[in-house]
Amino acid sequence: MEGILDLRYALDTFYFLVMGAFVMWMAAGFAMLEAGLVRAKNTAEILTKNIVLYAIACIMYMLMGYNLMYPDGGSGFFPSIDLSFMFGGDNDPAAVLAQGSDEWYDGDYYSGMSDFFFQVVFVATAMSIVSGAVAERMKLWAFLAFAVVMTGFIYPIQGYWKWGGGWLDALGFSDFAGSGVVHLCGASAALAGVLLLGARKGKYLPDGKIKPIPGANLPLATLGTFILWMGWFGFNGGSELIVSNVGEANAVAAVFVNTNAAAAGGVVAALVTAQILFGKADLTMALNGALAGLVAITAEPLAPTPLWATLIGAVGGVLVVFSIIGLDKLKIDDPVGAISVHGMVGMWGLLAVPLTNSDASFVSQLIGLVSIFAWTAIVSGLVWFVLKVTMGIRVSEEEEYEGVDIGECGLEAYPEFGARSQANG
Amino acid sequence: MEGILDLRYALDTFYFLVMGAFVMWMAAGFAMLEAGLVRAKNTAEILTKNIVLYAIACIMYMLMGYNLMYPDGGSGFFPSIDLSFMFGGDNDPAAVLAQGSDEWYDGDYYSGMSDFFFQVVFVATAMSIVSGAVAERMKLWAFLAFAVVMTGFIYPIQGYWKWGGGWLDALGFSDFAGSGVVHLCGASAALAGVLLLGARKGKYLPDGKIKPIPGANLPLATLGTFILWMGWFGFNGGSELIVSNVGEANAVAAVFVNTNAAAAGGVVAALVTAQILFGKADLTMALNGALAGLVAITAEPLAPTPLWATLIGAVGGVLVVFSIIGLDKLKIDDPVGAISVHGMVGMWGLLAVPLTNSDASFVSQLIGLVSIFAWTAIVSGLVWFVLKVTMGIRVSEEEEYEGVDIGECGLEAYPEFGARSQANG
Amino acid sequence: MEGILDLRYALDTFYFLVMGAFVMWMAAGFAMLEAGLVRAKNTAEILTKNIVLYAIACIMYMLMGYNLMYPDGGSGFFPSIDLSFMFGGDNDPAAVLAQGSDEWYDGDYYSGMSDFFFQVVFVATAMSIVSGAVAERMKLWAFLAFAVVMTGFIYPIQGYWKWGGGWLDALGFSDFAGSGVVHLCGASAALAGVLLLGARKGKYLPDGKIKPIPGANLPLATLGTFILWMGWFGFNGGSELIVSNVGEANAVAAVFVNTNAAAAGGVVAALVTAQILFGKADLTMALNGALAGLVAITAEPLAPTPLWATLIGAVGGVLVVFSIIGLDKLKIDDPVGAISVHGMVGMWGLLAVPLTNSDASFVSQLIGLVSIFAWTAIVSGLVWFVLKVTMGIRVSEEEEYEGVDIGECGLEAYPEFGARSQANG
Repeated sequence: MEGILDLRYALDTFYFLVMGAFVMWMAAGFAMLEAGLVRAKNTAEILTKNIVLYAIACIMYMLMGYNLMYPDGGSGFFPSIDLSFMFGGDNDPAAVLAQGSDEWYDGDYYSGMSDFFFQVVFVATAMSIVSGAVAERMKLWAFLAFAVVMTGFIYPIQGYWKWGGGWLDALGFSDFAGSGVVHLCGASAALAGVLLLGARKGKYLPDGKIKPIPGANLPLATLGTFILWMGWFGFNGGSELIVSNVGEANAVAAVFVNTNAAAAGGVVAALVTAQILFGKADLTMALNGALAGLVAITAEPLAPTPLWATLIGAVGGVLVVFSIIGLDKLKIDDPVGAISVHGMVGMWGLLAVPLTNSDASFVSQLIGLVSIFAWTAIVSGLVWFVLKVTMGIRVSEEEEYEGVDIGECGLEAYPEFGARSQANG
Repeated sequence: MEGILDLRYALDTFYFLVMGAFVMWMAAGFAMLEAGLVRAKNTAEILTKNIVLYAIACIMYMLMGYNLMYPDGGSGFFPSIDLSFMFGGDNDPAAVLAQGSDEWYDGDYYSGMSDFFFQVVFVATAMSIVSGAVAERMKLWAFLAFAVVMTGFIYPIQGYWKWGGGWLDALGFSDFAGSGVVHLCGASAALAGVLLLGARKGKYLPDGKIKPIPGANLPLATLGTFILWMGWFGFNGGSELIVSNVGEANAVAAVFVNTNAAAAGGVVAALVTAQILFGKADLTMALNGALAGLVAITAEPLAPTPLWATLIGAVGGVLVVFSIIGLDKLKIDDPVGAISVHGMVGMWGLLAVPLTNSDASFVSQLIGLVSIFAWTAIVSGLVWFVLKVTMGIRVSEEEEYEGVDIGECGLEAYPEFGARSQANG
Repeated sequence: MEGILDLRYALDTFYFLVMGAFVMWMAAGFAMLEAGLVRAKNTAEILTKNIVLYAIACIMYMLMGYNLMYPDGGSGFFPSIDLSFMFGGDNDPAAVLAQGSDEWYDGDYYSGMSDFFFQVVFVATAMSIVSGAVAERMKLWAFLAFAVVMTGFIYPIQGYWKWGGGWLDALGFSDFAGSGVVHLCGASAALAGVLLLGARKGKYLPDGKIKPIPGANLPLATLGTFILWMGWFGFNGGSELIVSNVGEANAVAAVFVNTNAAAAGGVVAALVTAQILFGKADLTMALNGALAGLVAITAEPLAPTPLWATLIGAVGGVLVVFSIIGLDKLKIDDPVGAISVHGMVGMWGLLAVPLTNSDASFVSQLIGLVSIFAWTAIVSGLVWFVLKVTMGIRVSEEEEYEGVDIGECGLEAYPEFGARSQANG
């Protein structure tokens, strides 16, 4: 018996670690996606933000976020505070093996450290969503200051509500891998930032016209999308938490298939929508369609059949195109479409859960959606506001014109290229 | 006993899913490779084709391809038709665990969904081969229409012949992971397309000279090659299908080592060949050498020793250089060398199987090779022809000159760079 | 019992293969990092070096390196010679299963082929470190000739001293995953090469000024860093060698968490240091900080708590910034900072082991450090010297000015871009 318990624990831990490494890889995906969708003169700065926000997320989540989100006791709005994780420690092998096989899945069936690893890459994902929306005009250090609060406090609190056993979980709110807890949360923080920050200079012209500002490097943006697609197998696939018996293995496999199917549905739906609306097969919409399909299925990647998953993703793909157009009409300037992809489609994902999972209700999904949005947008808005009146959040007009790479980072992303860059000055 | 069966099933399923995720990653590899080897003005379009063909492959294979390729019954030229996969379903845990350990490997020893996931990423690989060969001049929507037929019908039928238990399998044709079923199949469809499409304008000059058209972004092409190399561990390593006992684990490890060794042999052989022929260490030939080594070993990555695997890959590496030169002399214009890498070397891979695997015969390998080539080239040719006379497959001469990015996608891949692009107009 | 032994062997083998695939992926990381940090005119050549050195490492390690590093018998300075690996062979399943469970972990508990795979990607990592330091001025074929000796002989000998059971292991020298055996070794060979090669033309001006030569493509360099970060989970995580019981699974999880934490600490520390020193948030320093954190933790990623790991990485991040500045003052020209990241911080990693691992002593760490450095630097220096007086190691001044891409590879990395490249001529 001991050998079997050992192996179960080892397999579930290893599964968790591999899935977590895939999610970590999404940090590279966001970095490439955003670097490809901004102008050349703002590329080094967005790369800096992406790698540093990931590092800050890892540090802040270790220092306090993880313990806030998964406290030992308590349920409700605020968790108990416990700062012990930074000192490590894991399950005692003897105690693990002393468990009977019946109580196994109520007990500690994988390494606590592997759980931390999987969770820490999630908080980085939520924060990565913000960087794209505020690109090309936000001060680097103000952004990083926000990242400290977001990853150490704002995200963990609402994460606790659902995944830490708080009030949303008690209410029956259903969010398998985080259409709400991760994607809507990130998009809500981004929206609050964008509203306080304002649009990029020259984006919305006085005569009411909207000037398109194309991304400088679409191969990078495409690479970023593929990285995110791959990483999402870990994001959703790892959220089953266990793989070590027939039923759980089947569940993880279904999650992989549905995650892939939803992304495929999103690509095709967004491309067709763009072709109809614009008369062109717009690559950036296909990319956003893939991501929209992935966000849409994240709230419930287990219950749907592959056909359902494709359709849920396809609705996300249509929705994201209209959302991007709509936000532009509202003069909400989001250079990479992050609020549409993660926010609008995150909401769709949450509301679509009852379509295939009879344990979920539309009402509890709506309560969860509103709660996550309200908490994150309001608290984020306060933090952005404090940053705005203290250190300032927007670069000078001159720096914005010259590019934030030189101003913030003191270097250029492509120092030898870019002769045509004046065209997009 | 139940615990052991659970764990075996879980480990084999998890192995399949991780290997499948590696193969999915190859889609990004093809996208980067092809985007790096075309001119800047045709980059966004090839990226669009790559991500959308992957999505189409996933949808069509779910709708009909998977059931055509792996029908429950029947053997021969045409499988029975069964459209049920899209509605999902997986092995019943109770039935799995009721199997005795003796019958285990005759029964359902991993998740059916994980099998679908592994297979669906294979069909996308076959289709990815096509996009590179027809790059820089084919209409986007015609290409996507072909993708629907290829991934839903052409590929699955010949796949069924071997891997679904059809007549080639009964004949003793040996193709471990698809030098024929995947790579030669993709290259045959590409060749048919290229023949109907014609060469790029300005490639073959009236005076008989051949104008080199260099790729715009070799770091991308190199990245794509590394991605494909990495993904190939899943492609070949997952094709062992089981890992959960000593013998199978040894087999998977041997496949990893040989896959890597063959690619290494291909790189060195192609680089040395290029140095001798051209007097320069041509990077693109080194990249093609890596891919040639990988394609060559794919038909039999288990039986060879590491030394044999290196040599089989090295022959592929030499072959691919001469094939690329030869096809150019025949005025068969393949911008990325896909027909040489996947077709010529795929044939070498099939014919090399009897060198190390005594269960294979040269005659059955040749029959398999000819059958796959004939089926795919003829049916693909018919489909390309129908597309040509209905919607047209080639962009206008003006659009080809201006670049298909603007014409097909309405955007540019590198809007701020490219001042020297006239040089390659 | 048989089932459990089978599963243990299978799980440990599969774990090894997946971790090895992650390490192989680091080859792509080095290629992208170095391609991003050199000038456009030298990019194709550095890409060629990176993919070919990986191939050479795989071939030479199969032919002789693996058997030199892990001989069946002998301990001391020089291993016995055994060239049998190229002919393959793996553990006999019957013999494996005949082991009692008590002797299990003294016996053959995973596939020998999987062990080779994991080790072969390590030697490629060591060699990859060299290519960056000698970039932009070294002859391609001289570099490849050095790679043959380094991967077949120099690296395996010192690797044998520790990991093959040689004299450093007997002495109590502690190096979990290779801060010394891999990173310091690679950096020592690089330093010897740089000293014999000299600085790039125009780097150190006659008036004592140091001209910054910025990298041409920082998104690529950032991508490379993320790839290396991800691959490092395999590098350190796989070095635990076993995962299949509760204690080992906990250990692998701790290694993942600490590896990630150290990189995070390195990023933040290097960015803050750069901001203080230069007044700008220098992206390249943040990237070097991530790598420094990873190198620093590699000698001991298991014993520290996550907080300790963060601090060890942070010290690496500060150190790397000062080391890069210091080497420039010494006119040691290292275009990508490889000697600082892997050499200086590798030493810090070795010396930091006793801080958290009470089994290690400062004295034995220092002896290991000096031995690895002395062996590698001296023998490498001899090899570089022989190459210098025979085939020559430095390209002509004219070729250096025009760019080594044209001269060595006969092509350009970005043939359509680069109108501003004169600025960095």
